[in-house]
Amino acid sequence: MRIALAQMNAVIGDFDGNRERILSFARRAKNAIAGGGKGAGRADLVVFPELALCGYPPMDLLDQDSFVERCLASLRRLQRELPPELAVAVGYVDRNRGGEGRPLVNAVAVIAGGQVIFSQAKTLLPTYDVFDEARYFEPAPERRILELCGRRVGIAICEDIWWEAPPVPGLRYPVDPVKDLLDAGAELLIVPSASPFHAGKLEIRLRLAANAAREGGVPLLYCNSVGGNDSLVFDGRSFALDAAGRTAVQAGWEEELLLVDDEALRAPKGAAASAEQAPRNGPEGRPAAEAKAAALDARCDEIEAALVLGIRDYMRKCGFKKACLGLSGGIDSALVAVLAARAIGPENLTCISMPSRFSSEGSVTDSEALCARLGMRLESLPIEGPFAAYLELLEPKFEGRSFGLAEENLQARIRGCLLMAWSNKFGELLLTTGNKSELAAGYCTLYGDMCGALAPIGDLLKTEVFALSRRINARALAAGEAPVIPIATIEKAPSAELRPNQTDQDSLPPYELLDAILELYIIKNYDAAEIVARGFDELVVERVIAMVAKAEYKRRQAAPVIKVSPRAFGTGRRIPIARSLHESRSS
Amino acid sequence: MRIALAQMNAVIGDFDGNRERILSFARRAKNAIAGGGKGAGRADLVVFPELALCGYPPMDLLDQDSFVERCLASLRRLQRELPPELAVAVGYVDRNRGGEGRPLVNAVAVIAGGQVIFSQAKTLLPTYDVFDEARYFEPAPERRILELCGRRVGIAICEDIWWEAPPVPGLRYPVDPVKDLLDAGAELLIVPSASPFHAGKLEIRLRLAANAAREGGVPLLYCNSVGGNDSLVFDGRSFALDAAGRTAVQAGWEEELLLVDDEALRAPKGAAASAEQAPRNGPEGRPAAEAKAAALDARCDEIEAALVLGIRDYMRKCGFKKACLGLSGGIDSALVAVLAARAIGPENLTCISMPSRFSSEGSVTDSEALCARLGMRLESLPIEGPFAAYLELLEPKFEGRSFGLAEENLQARIRGCLLMAWSNKFGELLLTTGNKSELAAGYCTLYGDMCGALAPIGDLLKTEVFALSRRINARALAAGEAPVIPIATIEKAPSAELRPNQTDQDSLPPYELLDAILELYIIKNYDAAEIVARGFDELVVERVIAMVAKAEYKRRQAAPVIKVSPRAFGTGRRIPIARSLHESRSS
Repeated sequence: MRIALAQMNAVIGDFDGNRERILSFARRAKNAIAGGGKGAGRADLVVFPELALCGYPPMDLLDQDSFVERCLASLRRLQRELPPELAVAVGYVDRNRGGEGRPLVNAVAVIAGGQVIFSQAKTLLPTYDVFDEARYFEPAPERRILELCGRRVGIAICEDIWWEAPPVPGLRYPVDPVKDLLDAGAELLIVPSASPFHAGKLEIRLRLAANAAREGGVPLLYCNSVGGNDSLVFDGRSFALDAAGRTAVQAGWEEELLLVDDEALRAPKGAAASAEQAPRNGPEGRPAAEAKAAALDARCDEIEAALVLGIRDYMRKCGFKKACLGLSGGIDSALVAVLAARAIGPENLTCISMPSRFSSEGSVTDSEALCARLGMRLESLPIEGPFAAYLELLEPKFEGRSFGLAEENLQARIRGCLLMAWSNKFGELLLTTGNKSELAAGYCTLYGDMCGALAPIGDLLKTEVFALSRRINARALAAGEAPVIPIATIEKAPSAELRPNQTDQDSLPPYELLDAILELYIIKNYDAAEIVARGFDELVVERVIAMVAKAEYKRRQAAPVIKVSPRAFGTGRRIPIARSLHESRSS
Repeated sequence: MRIALAQMNAVIGDFDGNRERILSFARRAKNAIAGGGKGAGRADLVVFPELALCGYPPMDLLDQDSFVERCLASLRRLQRELPPELAVAVGYVDRNRGGEGRPLVNAVAVIAGGQVIFSQAKTLLPTYDVFDEARYFEPAPERRILELCGRRVGIAICEDIWWEAPPVPGLRYPVDPVKDLLDAGAELLIVPSASPFHAGKLEIRLRLAANAAREGGVPLLYCNSVGGNDSLVFDGRSFALDAAGRTAVQAGWEEELLLVDDEALRAPKGAAASAEQAPRNGPEGRPAAEAKAAALDARCDEIEAALVLGIRDYMRKCGFKKACLGLSGGIDSALVAVLAARAIGPENLTCISMPSRFSSEGSVTDSEALCARLGMRLESLPIEGPFAAYLELLEPKFEGRSFGLAEENLQARIRGCLLMAWSNKFGELLLTTGNKSELAAGYCTLYGDMCGALAPIGDLLKTEVFALSRRINARALAAGEAPVIPIATIEKAPSAELRPNQTDQDSLPPYELLDAILELYIIKNYDAAEIVARGFDELVVERVIAMVAKAEYKRRQAAPVIKVSPRAFGTGRRIPIARSLHESRSS
């Protein structure tokens, strides 16, 4: 049987557009002559990602009856419009026709000959991190087998292959959908997914999928969504595994039609060369240090790919062609400018320098160097005029009080006002340039440098900002080009430049230390005692945890960040603002 | 058996403080001589609200193992510290000891004689609107009976009495916990709850509880949390129903210990006068119009009580004594000032008038009148200086473009900067004064008038703002006092005053119309066709829905609103930003 995996980029709620895309992929699959020895001739089955018909995640749009109705109407239209000789597996929202429980199911329909010949709902409904599926969906009560082209096919939807390793400590799913399907005689597993990116996630998907393939001795075809939606980036990279769990083919980060022949995957010895497994993380024989460096480089590269895709799709799906940002001469805004230039083209990005009485000379010259290197427009709006006007107005009220946080924040807020005025006047989407370490510690100004519609690096710790910046420069050097990000930008001590001779380390622990603690506190959910037990200084740990808790109100009003870690700020981390600091040792 | 309902105000994560409160209530119950014929002498059983030990909703703090450990340690300490002769039912987080599923349960332990003698987990886990309980908890596999003082007692936790009427269309809970308890012979139902307020919710609770009491012919004791937590207000109003479902006693909006004797509730004929049911909504015989007006007044009064409690507790639990806000002379900021003055005292509120070149004379005089009436401090910060400085700076860049949205928003943002400078300098929490109609339509400036830590009236439609303001004035007049909110503030046409002769209705449909459409779209989840079918103009409906969708990015960065409706903006309404407008007819 020939199967096409249609790695599609759906838009949430765009029923007409998504259906058109599905039809277009199906026509391509019908006419495709697959190359590379992986089966020639048209596909028998075309597989689309989870909820491809309505987009993922639809969130509370699912509460609108009209959303579900339009999805079902779209499915009916597909039955009429798809080539009848093809079988097409497409993700959609269905009503729960079983009666009890939630009103909907997250399902995949198989359409052939103008009919829905099969439908399977999802069993394991992720309800953790950014996922809320139990809010809407009832789990499938049973898992059935699709008979197609003489094959017994099992369909597991995304989380359905995660039974063995749910990413929540202590969670144990009561049903293993893959086992059920294999017990029912599945000879082939199809996994339509909408699995969002975080660094290292592909390896987990491949491991779980390979375990399933090996357990059943059957091929497994994983079709993921691709594209950005708000905070989430669906990284595509759909794959086909042979019956021994080896990766035969894998798609990239764009829309793509991947053609495979399950016969070749069933008999891996006779399969094409592409079915041979290339180790992903440092082949044996290489020195350990070199392998580790290569793995870190690969990690930077996949994060960069995710951020570029996330920026590009957020802007496209929100209807923006041009963006603007404040360029300070520091590393955060420089990195965001580089990523945005890649996402939308340097000609569509306006960088705005807003020097103050406290700005270093480098803040301007480094910004100029970066814009010249990448061909971006640079505008200058010195903030002294508005700053002086505010100080004059406030002087009688603030009389006798010294220059402090209010005046520091005011400068950041003037910049926010100017950037928003620019955005409003020219219709350019404002990108905010803060990183995760700042957002965590509250070392950022609400309504100031936090202004913006999207926070591209809001899920990158400062040390990761440095690592990615260095990697981008190293790649340029390796290609015989000049560094992309000015060396001075990378090497100077980070500073907000809101008072004379300020550096970040006046207010924060060294970033290496801060980030290591944040990793344990935010991602691992350790409390102070557990972090201290790992060798960190108690006073520093207490201080960091208190800073993170205190800044919760700021993060509640932060722009969406593009998720690249297992736990990003935003919808995936839900913390009350008004609360007592129980996780501190001294509490 | 004598039972005390301890209507408690817990702080999330304050394990020591919550335990102290529980001990204090228990000691009072031990020593209490109940009056009013409802049983004298000490209580046999003291009931606390759902999750009283850790506070509700703990949200993702539950992902921290240390949070659960501290809760369990706190429970162990309670066993040692509670008076051993009392039975105490206290809500806590327990580990799921059954194995499969989520790692935790939302449970109530009954402590007596230094031991946990009984524990019952919650069965129905609300996972809709602001609730995410399926994210953390496994439902109880069974519902058991507590034997106490010769009584068979059934414990149903909050949502457990909602089987017959889950507030999500199409949701059908598979188990009826009340029926299970009655089938097992419960002679008394205890319902520890953390049920957040919305207008009209008490009537639903009373109806569901009365149905349960009547179904079993048993008394029902409902113990709710009281107090504010971020967006949620727990309105207390715990109650005891007799076996015929009639309200015998009911608590108010504060911490309170309510003493009842279940014997009196079992034989309602012989019970005290307080057990006689007073009809809640307009007694028969009163003219219908008068009854309707009384119901609207009562609705305003309960909303006011919720907002005052919500402001007070948010500030207290976040550690703020003083607040500030921008007073424009318009009705929204006037109402927020009145509510805040009631919540924290007028002496703790700074009102700041920030007139511009476009401000009406009334904007200042009406602000002065309000502050004089309530005894609040009024400061003035005219924005012309900073506004002129910005315009001068931007002039070369904006050359040839006319005054527009950028310049209008700039004024709002200057005010936001000034208010935040004030807040930062004096440590006063900034309240933002926008209403739900504005937030819905996006008729508000992000980082401008949207600045603030809390949006007290962010869940009140503009027509509700008018109704509540008029009600507050009417109550003052009835008490022989001057109107609280200046009549001119209520009667002038709403205006943002950001350009000459501007009124809200230049940009929005009339508020009566806008709010009626918003009610159907936001609360009922109707699409354009369904709203038009109810008699609204198609063009207006399409326009409103498009405005709401377009403003999603603003709301994502809005301050928490205090929830008073069944669907408030914020964590209870989760909509993607990047999406297609499927619910419009023209899409």
